[in-house]
Amino acid sequence: MPLAPVPAVTADATRALFEHVRALSEALVAPLSDADATVQSMPDASPAKWHLAHTTWFFETFVLRDYVADYRLFDARFPFLFNSYYEAEGARHARDRRGMITRPSLDEVLAYRAAVTAAVVAAWPSLSTDARQLVELGCHHEQQHQELLLTDILHLFSCNPCEPAIWPAERKVPVAMPGPIGWLASEERVVEVGHDGTGFAFDCEGPRHRALVPAHAIANRTVTNGEWAAFVADGGYSDARLWLSDGWAWVKAERIIAPLYWEATDGAWTRFGLDGRRPIDPAAPVTHISFYEADAYASWAGARLPTEFEWEAAAAPHAADVGNFLDHAGPVEPRPAVSAPGFFGDVWEWTGSAYRPYPGFAAAEGAVGEYNGKFMNGQFVLRGGSCATPRGHARASYRNFFPPHQRWQFTGVRLAKDL
Amino acid sequence: MPLAPVPAVTADATRALFEHVRALSEALVAPLSDADATVQSMPDASPAKWHLAHTTWFFETFVLRDYVADYRLFDARFPFLFNSYYEAEGARHARDRRGMITRPSLDEVLAYRAAVTAAVVAAWPSLSTDARQLVELGCHHEQQHQELLLTDILHLFSCNPCEPAIWPAERKVPVAMPGPIGWLASEERVVEVGHDGTGFAFDCEGPRHRALVPAHAIANRTVTNGEWAAFVADGGYSDARLWLSDGWAWVKAERIIAPLYWEATDGAWTRFGLDGRRPIDPAAPVTHISFYEADAYASWAGARLPTEFEWEAAAAPHAADVGNFLDHAGPVEPRPAVSAPGFFGDVWEWTGSAYRPYPGFAAAEGAVGEYNGKFMNGQFVLRGGSCATPRGHARASYRNFFPPHQRWQFTGVRLAKDL
Amino acid sequence: MPLAPVPAVTADATRALFEHVRALSEALVAPLSDADATVQSMPDASPAKWHLAHTTWFFETFVLRDYVADYRLFDARFPFLFNSYYEAEGARHARDRRGMITRPSLDEVLAYRAAVTAAVVAAWPSLSTDARQLVELGCHHEQQHQELLLTDILHLFSCNPCEPAIWPAERKVPVAMPGPIGWLASEERVVEVGHDGTGFAFDCEGPRHRALVPAHAIANRTVTNGEWAAFVADGGYSDARLWLSDGWAWVKAERIIAPLYWEATDGAWTRFGLDGRRPIDPAAPVTHISFYEADAYASWAGARLPTEFEWEAAAAPHAADVGNFLDHAGPVEPRPAVSAPGFFGDVWEWTGSAYRPYPGFAAAEGAVGEYNGKFMNGQFVLRGGSCATPRGHARASYRNFFPPHQRWQFTGVRLAKDL
Amino acid sequence: MPLAPVPAVTADATRALFEHVRALSEALVAPLSDADATVQSMPDASPAKWHLAHTTWFFETFVLRDYVADYRLFDARFPFLFNSYYEAEGARHARDRRGMITRPSLDEVLAYRAAVTAAVVAAWPSLSTDARQLVELGCHHEQQHQELLLTDILHLFSCNPCEPAIWPAERKVPVAMPGPIGWLASEERVVEVGHDGTGFAFDCEGPRHRALVPAHAIANRTVTNGEWAAFVADGGYSDARLWLSDGWAWVKAERIIAPLYWEATDGAWTRFGLDGRRPIDPAAPVTHISFYEADAYASWAGARLPTEFEWEAAAAPHAADVGNFLDHAGPVEPRPAVSAPGFFGDVWEWTGSAYRPYPGFAAAEGAVGEYNGKFMNGQFVLRGGSCATPRGHARASYRNFFPPHQRWQFTGVRLAKDL
Repeated sequence: MPLAPVPAVTADATRALFEHVRALSEALVAPLSDADATVQSMPDASPAKWHLAHTTWFFETFVLRDYVADYRLFDARFPFLFNSYYEAEGARHARDRRGMITRPSLDEVLAYRAAVTAAVVAAWPSLSTDARQLVELGCHHEQQHQELLLTDILHLFSCNPCEPAIWPAERKVPVAMPGPIGWLASEERVVEVGHDGTGFAFDCEGPRHRALVPAHAIANRTVTNGEWAAFVADGGYSDARLWLSDGWAWVKAERIIAPLYWEATDGAWTRFGLDGRRPIDPAAPVTHISFYEADAYASWAGARLPTEFEWEAAAAPHAADVGNFLDHAGPVEPRPAVSAPGFFGDVWEWTGSAYRPYPGFAAAEGAVGEYNGKFMNGQFVLRGGSCATPRGHARASYRNFFPPHQRWQFTGVRLAKDL
Repeated sequence: MPLAPVPAVTADATRALFEHVRALSEALVAPLSDADATVQSMPDASPAKWHLAHTTWFFETFVLRDYVADYRLFDARFPFLFNSYYEAEGARHARDRRGMITRPSLDEVLAYRAAVTAAVVAAWPSLSTDARQLVELGCHHEQQHQELLLTDILHLFSCNPCEPAIWPAERKVPVAMPGPIGWLASEERVVEVGHDGTGFAFDCEGPRHRALVPAHAIANRTVTNGEWAAFVADGGYSDARLWLSDGWAWVKAERIIAPLYWEATDGAWTRFGLDGRRPIDPAAPVTHISFYEADAYASWAGARLPTEFEWEAAAAPHAADVGNFLDHAGPVEPRPAVSAPGFFGDVWEWTGSAYRPYPGFAAAEGAVGEYNGKFMNGQFVLRGGSCATPRGHARASYRNFFPPHQRWQFTGVRLAKDL
Repeated sequence: MPLAPVPAVTADATRALFEHVRALSEALVAPLSDADATVQSMPDASPAKWHLAHTTWFFETFVLRDYVADYRLFDARFPFLFNSYYEAEGARHARDRRGMITRPSLDEVLAYRAAVTAAVVAAWPSLSTDARQLVELGCHHEQQHQELLLTDILHLFSCNPCEPAIWPAERKVPVAMPGPIGWLASEERVVEVGHDGTGFAFDCEGPRHRALVPAHAIANRTVTNGEWAAFVADGGYSDARLWLSDGWAWVKAERIIAPLYWEATDGAWTRFGLDGRRPIDPAAPVTHISFYEADAYASWAGARLPTEFEWEAAAAPHAADVGNFLDHAGPVEPRPAVSAPGFFGDVWEWTGSAYRPYPGFAAAEGAVGEYNGKFMNGQFVLRGGSCATPRGHARASYRNFFPPHQRWQFTGVRLAKDL
Repeated sequence: MPLAPVPAVTADATRALFEHVRALSEALVAPLSDADATVQSMPDASPAKWHLAHTTWFFETFVLRDYVADYRLFDARFPFLFNSYYEAEGARHARDRRGMITRPSLDEVLAYRAAVTAAVVAAWPSLSTDARQLVELGCHHEQQHQELLLTDILHLFSCNPCEPAIWPAERKVPVAMPGPIGWLASEERVVEVGHDGTGFAFDCEGPRHRALVPAHAIANRTVTNGEWAAFVADGGYSDARLWLSDGWAWVKAERIIAPLYWEATDGAWTRFGLDGRRPIDPAAPVTHISFYEADAYASWAGARLPTEFEWEAAAAPHAADVGNFLDHAGPVEPRPAVSAPGFFGDVWEWTGSAYRPYPGFAAAEGAVGEYNGKFMNGQFVLRGGSCATPRGHARASYRNFFPPHQRWQFTGVRLAKDL
């Protein structure tokens, strides 16, 4: 197991987390039909039903099968269907064909969930510490899939010309436009980064280690839709000089002219969200942008992206569970800041750091060791969590990662500059 | 309108056909869940829900909208969603993205069907002859989609590793193996081919005209699974000399070693069907083969494919509504012949004729003129109808057509040879 | 051998043909550099050097190796490099990688040619009739490659932004614009088509047989550049109704707006040819058009393409060696008609007939049996020969064939209509 | 200009470098035919002729055109043909179509080179310091292309089934197998990395800055062919656990089983090189491996790749111009170490560092600012230079970079491990 001991989290807390997480997943899919939950809109996305089942397979496999005597699989066909990418767990259904699985139905998958949840709860008193740590890992794993479930379903609905809303829009309280970006300056210094072993963390967040951070300044908030619209209006998407070479090729090949889900409707920008198509909010953080776009914007603004260590050093003093996070089912989206801006929630922030292992990192033995390490090339680190991240899931040391062209997550950008 | 007057079919017969056809479509989808009916398994296939809605759109557009005063569309968004390929009817949803339409749901589509069916029935007494002919065209159009619906859902279920059955298997009565092929010989002669204007026909079946058919013999039955297994065992799929150049490239690129849905299970060939995976029946006609395979088999057998006119001349004396056709919902499949074999039903028979217009063919004016003419390249003609063709839909002059690599239809082969 | 006896051609005539053909190929490449002769501009085209060597390999393999005792291969590596598609002759270099063969050089290939030519001439007195027939087949085969060599090199040079000319332009004599198309009418009748066994023919031209030709009229000349420019100006390339479905998809995907090699330069159409870029000649036959374009043009003109038998019946009375053919090295191109128009030369004429076997056709035994039969799907027949076809190579029964999207050959169109 | 002042290099030294570099390029292509120099074997490679012309275009554009009054372009068409990727320099020929340029010929390109070389030499006395710095930049740029020219021509020749050798093999002196790897240990410390401004450097090598290097050990030599053969024999290419996820997908899709150019010939490994196909030398450094392979090997060996700063800190004390570098035309390849191993020459060493900008990096204004910065994503840093790198071109701070799947360069691997 890649995890340090978890003295700060009591066994009861883990069990409570487990029940909370399981219930939230089911609440998120409540408005979905069987068909909504089955279709896969692109190879990178998965059906909602698959998320529900895969997270359940994780508990069934690594906890019940491995630690509960005489446990019998709910359905012997499900490991093949719902293993994601664990080579050590054997053959599996092709990732880009997950949308073919019309059966089992959503109801059957919910029954699978109920059975596994009940089995874990029943086994809880007799579970070893190792098994309980795997339950905790499974909870954080499921929280990751909750976010993917929301972004995947948003993508699917965006592929429907009718652009259905999943939830009605929330009432918006008018908020003043944010003032200009403030800059938080820092001298060159050696900082400690990475997870310190207190509480849960994924393997890729450690070991904690020292790193030298250069003199720099980092913005005190993320870039807004209003600022992004100015970038668009200034020809940002048609000036090759602002873009990385691969980014420019991507812009031209995909005919990118604005963030994903933006459309010019009657002369004004709108965006598609979980509440349907609505006008962009100029005061809210821009989202659904790729690393390429974030990087080009920074060039246009005379700045650069922060490194992940600059970000972590700046964010560490802030509370990681305060901000616009996912608390319950409903149309999450980034919101304008109403008070002193922080570093957590609203949008994942692209950093300029490639996703690579920390000094001393070693993948764990066995299947769970495939969790993070094997994806450490071709991706960039994002930090901070988003409006679709379950509250409590984020940490200063948390490293999310995506390829530079992806933008169906709630991704945004915070600027930095050299001093 | 491409259709000749239809004196032989009374108005009442058309109305009865309409109600029969509408009901059969709905019976076919009764076992399907919302998800089953929504997913698209490949660009060539369409979701069951789409077939249900598209055939309804056809009546709504070309009958209700065009001939019924003050008709109001059931849903203004549906023409965009459910137009198939009619350029004259404006923009439409991309064919390969039909599986993204999780909403409207199957229930909503069934409500759409009910409303349009009711509106046609209500309008019936006041419909003009032109409109009634369009209703008739729409019925035959829907019958075509009934067959596609079955073959598309079969393909979808084949993509599910669990290989679900839609219907339980029918009881099989043991049947004796057919004897050797008998040959029906014919001298060179001029024959009349094409539809003669009695009853309904699609535009591509006419005009009726004379054609010279060379001296030849045509088989009195189609090739069986047992004969095909001998071809496989003899290395038919690995001998380049038997194959067209494009066919050989296809065999190698797709690693084809047997008909679609065949698998070697425990040393014996099985096939997947609407009743799940079961052993092949050696006495039944082989099906789910491509033109390339049919052609290679004929080479191996020292024969060739019949031309469509050779086929039509031989088939014309036979009754077109006798044979193994689709009568009601259930697991259709080709069956062993129990008596004198005929030319209709069981499997569509690949001919050696490219699908091209007859002398004097002209597409009709307007959108329905797009029905057949614009597909007249790159495809081969198939004749005779299959077990998934609604009984009464086939005719001696009926021309079905598919590209040479396709095999998810109930396609088979009858041999011919030069004399 | 697929060939009938050749009583009309004396042995001396074959030998003279051999020497003539071999010399012409070498004259055609005289202006080419080693690099010009080596590069492959697309998978469908071959390097000039490859044409020179492959045609030589044909003689070396099927004549010298098989019929001349103790013949020793010029270079044991060449069969692998220069076999085109004969499966029976074993493994071969991939077709789309022919342009990688920078060595042997053009000079070495010319030496290979000289050696094989000399060996055939030396062996001539002792060659059997079978072997001599293979020499004759090889001559006609090489003539086919002479045409491909010219069209392939034209394509290559069109890929060079400098658009080099291979030969200087010929002096043009002003010619009057042709008058309107005249129509040659025919009643329905049974005609004899296919090669009659007198002189050389490829296997796909036979057997000669009867066919019924419907009442129709065929144009007395091909469509001109001027007429085509009117089609373009009338929006022919943007009206979906004129196009086959596959053709329309091709037009949109490839952004086709005019014949290949046409460009609008300073408001007037120019074309690229073997003499560089020059204005189109409105009186000359249009060329470098696909079947899709030919078919769409015919729809626009209220006509259709002739079938190959309509064409053959009309052309048979005309002399097949009179017209604008390839006589010697130089910038061939279609020319305005100066007298009564015929059916041969200038441009290959797309017919509406799919390329399929004639009744009674059977491929020959052995490798040469792969010559034509295995390509009989997915292609359309062209008739008549072009300005790049060596004079004497064409016949009324000659069947050329290409896929419907191809247009780098000298392809044009003659109209027909139903009566 | 991205370059710091170059006080340490006298003007005369730059001029001498210029003449030396220009002559070496021409010596390298001496054995190539016009065809050899024209063909492009894959989109990532360029024709030798293109390298010769592009490096000349660089001098002509940025020195002669911009700094020499009344300079007239050698050929007005060449900027379009020979610009590589400078958006600021306008439209250019597509990168993957460079192999279509059969004209100008190799001789014409050599004439272009001679004219530009002469013009620079003639202008030298009057060139400003800025212009001279651009000449120096152009020399280092051309040295980079000399290495690419060699690796590209090697790749081209590997695509020829005849596997021609460009140069005869050098006489090999038998060398003892190297002993086990020795480890150079280092405590955690802050080091200075990046170019210090003395002498020439590319923009991406600066600014020099401090970085914290963790406690680690780095190998005292690179991995050998013999060691790699043991990895292959141990199933390294078929054990998914050793590979990054993208790497494993690449291995399976491309069916990779050994380094590029290795083949199992009669039971023993051979490699293709500029001297043809020969047995691998077990004592020489392994080369032509991808980052994926290097990373998998390190996992197999219980080690990891060094970071670029670990490498630089270890290499800095060593002389950068001692080792197996390119001195003159001939069949370069990695050689067994004959004495104390160093860090420079033989093979570029993959590091675990993504290619990203240093703190304070800013691309220069104008076209030359496109030199490096826009490629800073998706690639990994390589260090040390190779047998195909011109001697004197490498530096401790030098950062080469390639995508993780590429292996046609002379790439190898040195191990590191955490302490």
